[in-house]
Amino acid sequence: MTDPDLLFPPDPRTREVARILFAHAKDLPIISPHGHVDPWLLADDRAFGDPAQLLIVPDHYVTRLLYSQGVDMDALGVTRRDGAPVQTDGRAIWRLLAEHWSVFRATPSRLWLELTLAEVFDIRTPLSVGTADAIYDALAERLAGDAFRPRALFERFGIEVLATTESATDDLAAHAKLAADGWSGRVVTTFRPDDVVDPEWEGWGTRLDRLGEMTGEDTLTYRGYLAAVQARRDAFRAAGARSTDHGHPTARTADLSPADAEALFLRVAKGAGNPGDADLFRGQMLTEMARMSLDDGLVLQIHPGAWRNHNAPLFDRFGANVGADIPTATDYVGALRPLLNRFGNDPALSIIVFTLDESTYARELAPLAGHYPALKLGPSWWFHDSPEGMMRFREQTTETAGFYNTVGFNDDTRAFMSIPSRHDVARRVDCSFLARMVVEHRLPEDEAALLAPQLAYEFPKKAYKL
Amino acid sequence: MTDPDLLFPPDPRTREVARILFAHAKDLPIISPHGHVDPWLLADDRAFGDPAQLLIVPDHYVTRLLYSQGVDMDALGVTRRDGAPVQTDGRAIWRLLAEHWSVFRATPSRLWLELTLAEVFDIRTPLSVGTADAIYDALAERLAGDAFRPRALFERFGIEVLATTESATDDLAAHAKLAADGWSGRVVTTFRPDDVVDPEWEGWGTRLDRLGEMTGEDTLTYRGYLAAVQARRDAFRAAGARSTDHGHPTARTADLSPADAEALFLRVAKGAGNPGDADLFRGQMLTEMARMSLDDGLVLQIHPGAWRNHNAPLFDRFGANVGADIPTATDYVGALRPLLNRFGNDPALSIIVFTLDESTYARELAPLAGHYPALKLGPSWWFHDSPEGMMRFREQTTETAGFYNTVGFNDDTRAFMSIPSRHDVARRVDCSFLARMVVEHRLPEDEAALLAPQLAYEFPKKAYKL
Amino acid sequence: MTDPDLLFPPDPRTREVARILFAHAKDLPIISPHGHVDPWLLADDRAFGDPAQLLIVPDHYVTRLLYSQGVDMDALGVTRRDGAPVQTDGRAIWRLLAEHWSVFRATPSRLWLELTLAEVFDIRTPLSVGTADAIYDALAERLAGDAFRPRALFERFGIEVLATTESATDDLAAHAKLAADGWSGRVVTTFRPDDVVDPEWEGWGTRLDRLGEMTGEDTLTYRGYLAAVQARRDAFRAAGARSTDHGHPTARTADLSPADAEALFLRVAKGAGNPGDADLFRGQMLTEMARMSLDDGLVLQIHPGAWRNHNAPLFDRFGANVGADIPTATDYVGALRPLLNRFGNDPALSIIVFTLDESTYARELAPLAGHYPALKLGPSWWFHDSPEGMMRFREQTTETAGFYNTVGFNDDTRAFMSIPSRHDVARRVDCSFLARMVVEHRLPEDEAALLAPQLAYEFPKKAYKL
Repeated sequence: MTDPDLLFPPDPRTREVARILFAHAKDLPIISPHGHVDPWLLADDRAFGDPAQLLIVPDHYVTRLLYSQGVDMDALGVTRRDGAPVQTDGRAIWRLLAEHWSVFRATPSRLWLELTLAEVFDIRTPLSVGTADAIYDALAERLAGDAFRPRALFERFGIEVLATTESATDDLAAHAKLAADGWSGRVVTTFRPDDVVDPEWEGWGTRLDRLGEMTGEDTLTYRGYLAAVQARRDAFRAAGARSTDHGHPTARTADLSPADAEALFLRVAKGAGNPGDADLFRGQMLTEMARMSLDDGLVLQIHPGAWRNHNAPLFDRFGANVGADIPTATDYVGALRPLLNRFGNDPALSIIVFTLDESTYARELAPLAGHYPALKLGPSWWFHDSPEGMMRFREQTTETAGFYNTVGFNDDTRAFMSIPSRHDVARRVDCSFLARMVVEHRLPEDEAALLAPQLAYEFPKKAYKL
Repeated sequence: MTDPDLLFPPDPRTREVARILFAHAKDLPIISPHGHVDPWLLADDRAFGDPAQLLIVPDHYVTRLLYSQGVDMDALGVTRRDGAPVQTDGRAIWRLLAEHWSVFRATPSRLWLELTLAEVFDIRTPLSVGTADAIYDALAERLAGDAFRPRALFERFGIEVLATTESATDDLAAHAKLAADGWSGRVVTTFRPDDVVDPEWEGWGTRLDRLGEMTGEDTLTYRGYLAAVQARRDAFRAAGARSTDHGHPTARTADLSPADAEALFLRVAKGAGNPGDADLFRGQMLTEMARMSLDDGLVLQIHPGAWRNHNAPLFDRFGANVGADIPTATDYVGALRPLLNRFGNDPALSIIVFTLDESTYARELAPLAGHYPALKLGPSWWFHDSPEGMMRFREQTTETAGFYNTVGFNDDTRAFMSIPSRHDVARRVDCSFLARMVVEHRLPEDEAALLAPQLAYEFPKKAYKL
Repeated sequence: MTDPDLLFPPDPRTREVARILFAHAKDLPIISPHGHVDPWLLADDRAFGDPAQLLIVPDHYVTRLLYSQGVDMDALGVTRRDGAPVQTDGRAIWRLLAEHWSVFRATPSRLWLELTLAEVFDIRTPLSVGTADAIYDALAERLAGDAFRPRALFERFGIEVLATTESATDDLAAHAKLAADGWSGRVVTTFRPDDVVDPEWEGWGTRLDRLGEMTGEDTLTYRGYLAAVQARRDAFRAAGARSTDHGHPTARTADLSPADAEALFLRVAKGAGNPGDADLFRGQMLTEMARMSLDDGLVLQIHPGAWRNHNAPLFDRFGANVGADIPTATDYVGALRPLLNRFGNDPALSIIVFTLDESTYARELAPLAGHYPALKLGPSWWFHDSPEGMMRFREQTTETAGFYNTVGFNDDTRAFMSIPSRHDVARRVDCSFLARMVVEHRLPEDEAALLAPQLAYEFPKKAYKL
């Protein structure tokens, strides 16, 4: 499958231009400014476990599609909240994938996995029931070797910098270990404070307490709470963070007077909020974060619009992140206005906004990013981080926002092995889009040849201050 | 116009692959699992009437576009509710179509009609004012012959099974006649209970009475009402039904406690519902239908999101189905959650959902169908049942839902003559999509060659248990 | 850059057909039935000022993208409300554009500007920091010559008719001068009454007074107000107007009883409206305008869905039209129903509706326009008036509305110099769409060759009664 022309447009002349452009992007180092790899992976540098635990069990793109076809989560080895036993035999899990492999036809999960098998493991046999065991054995054998330890792969993958994501009360021990032991690989953290910013988060009260303990601030006063948040931002910056990330149900922002903001905080801190208070407080905190970003330089990322844990019975059994988060229609125009009117005219601030609602690309996001100096567009996200999705992103944002109000690619993945494949796919799609612009005489080829490495490498480096 | 490369992509290599794939799908039998052909057509097997009554008057795709250009419905022979005379001269109606034929350029209606004229009637003269009479005469002559009787055409079309749609209180006499008289063609019914499930349906009270009479149940109690609905489902199953169909204004579902559901029913049964009760009751009944489907195995189809009879003055004159139904923005994520949380994790249940709001393909429907075992996506529907619409469906659902959470093509038509054309168009578009996947190296050609007949034939047969 | 194949599809056969079709459209006269060119430009026929004042400062497409990259509006010469000095040196402004020219890659603004430089000014040097001064000098030199006066260009551009837009209380002196002085160029006005129809417009009370003075009507009674509006429509018709234009926040229409409408007017006229009254009154006035259109024959244009002046701090400094208008999700199905149910069945009425929400093309607008005789679709608008945007418009509306319920292209521009470029781009995109239809055997080439000049020339002429 790993044809050199993978994903390039069918028309021969356009394909030829895409090939030429891709040569400018293909081998550039990887900037991974936003993702969810476990930093202990690299801090400990232990060999990976069995292939299924590496490639299937934690990948909710894969398990969701198998589940949709009637495969039990238990049989896929997904841990149950009640501690009941689940499948632990990696080979059995791998066989389940092989049996249902047809389900993945024309999906990005298949593309990533085949590219990973071929390019990382040099396994080019097509997966099927007949080849499953042999592929499993080959994977297990390679994974046992030192060349497949996390740090060795990090270097082989050409990762220049990798950002992980930690919650506000994380002790950042993994990053401390990484900093201390002299390894040359650059791994930075990202400040993700949802659990201390969202009054509807499970255990919010105890999280405020924990935040107070960590920082020595009285987190039951608004002043103390904000100081504690700032203290954690400082600690994250010291651990290399260049950005914060906020995953809210909506894109709502607010810009309350100090007195109203304080009164709101006091209500929600006591668990005595009125209906709507939690949403309003999350919105107010985005604006507070923007204010802090102007001080400390952290880039502000907003990831709104997922209905988390849509499948309540499944959530009860398996908890979060098992594929039952569903995108919703999302407003940005009204929602972002309070924040943008307060701070959006300041070019010193950098806000990167994402969406799960593609109808907002041309209608809302490109016009907003094509106007406000502080606002940039994150790449196509999650369900839309796919060849068709990435192409729609370029087709629907470029004319109004230009390329220079976008920030290049984020892999946003917890699947370490798939990082090079994901960047490869993104670079191929961007070069395909640029190639069409060239062949349609909308962009000179020499300018497209400048853009290809900018989109692949320079934009994320600059946008995330890496 | 009926070029062998009709609808195939322009790029020569992609076109060549599309041709090869189409050879695997082109001549397969037709599975028509959802549609609105009058079963008496086949039960009686009488010759069709004049060409205009067959091809124009009942086709609201055709009459709506003519009406938009200022052609009177009366002049098109559409029956008036007040019984006032309308045009009955088929030739005059046919000439009106010919005069306005340019209006249909690049529409699916033109495609279907030209394919029907060419492939069913062997009439290949382009329609124009100058040729209208000759074509009309040729049509009339052929229609008078036995080879153009409904059953002969059914066989010539290669229809393996045709599902019609009847309301819950239909006596199913046409299907009884079909079953009794020994003809080999397979025609099944579909259970469409909107008129006994929707308290806002005209004459809902008398329909409840009729439902009670037919089943011997007391349909003014909730228990009796549900038993009556189940009894009708049983009668429909006996007449071959494999599915139910629900055409609601929204996709709302509900999962009330038995006591609340009963109280709600008692209010709406008496016509004493509160604002919102009708919508809530429709939503509750979708969940009740899912429960019954788990028992009796009928597939549950949901067709939401049409604003019916948008044009009130036209509705007053001509009644329903004259082209003034307009799609609306439709939510699925919140709307389907009660039903999906109750029954959506059961792979034994099969729910097929449709949309008139394409913005939900990638945002809501593909993520939902790519997760819940019970949920599958119906094909692009109604206004979107067109080459561009079908292509958008594949482009926007495949990466997240895969092919295997879709159910192949439904013609959804009341126009019997157009059935082969519609399936031909759908097969061509799917093969065009697959061909691009092949040429972009996203799908091996041998796997695409397996998918072509699956999408055309095997998927609808399996999804509808035919 | 001005390649003869600009914007044509990459596939060689499709490109060849596009070329052939474009030959039928390329040199047709320009019908510009909707735009914002200042009529004094042509009435006075004075030489244009410096190049930056002509090509950059008033073009909010250009200034918004520069602003998004941190360039000050002051430095771009945009007038401040407080009268504080801004950059007046055209050469300095031009250099700013050149420095940031890369930002415009693959945007329509670059396309229009490069086409304008090449085709209007015969300047084919690519813009860069190194060439900025030479290009500026060349522009300044040409602009000083008589061949570059507005009327000379109007004739050279092949403009058959140009519609400008004036507010209801404009004295139409520019049009009177144009009519009086014997110049053969046809310039007509358009009636834009937003400021006397929208109770939320700044200074609405004094505008009502002014309207009363101009017409001798008592504009504090509803009867007098409507008579005054009609009187201004009559004055506009006498100045050549063939259409009215309405730029409302939403597409809402209303059809109140005369008594309710009068009571509503009396509340809003006194500034004593209830919440929602302003929106309701705007909606009622669209229906009143439709009624007047049936009398006086003016075409009714509705341009809804922009959130005007989204950036409050910027609006405070620079006022309206500096690029901070943002599209919003817009409903048409419910919103237009009152008007359409009242007058939409009358083919004598002509309503042209536009959208900034592309998700409504296939879902709402094409179905509505493909049904109601009075309704037609305006071309892709504003942010979507771009190659990708225009192609999406055709792809998403044609199958349901056909071509004949659309009205061809509007340039909608205040940038006089860009008019031929904009029409050139639109003609190229339409021919590219038609070419694909031909190569996919969906439209015979001879019919496409008829459509190319219809879309470019005949449709706007007919739809706007020019």
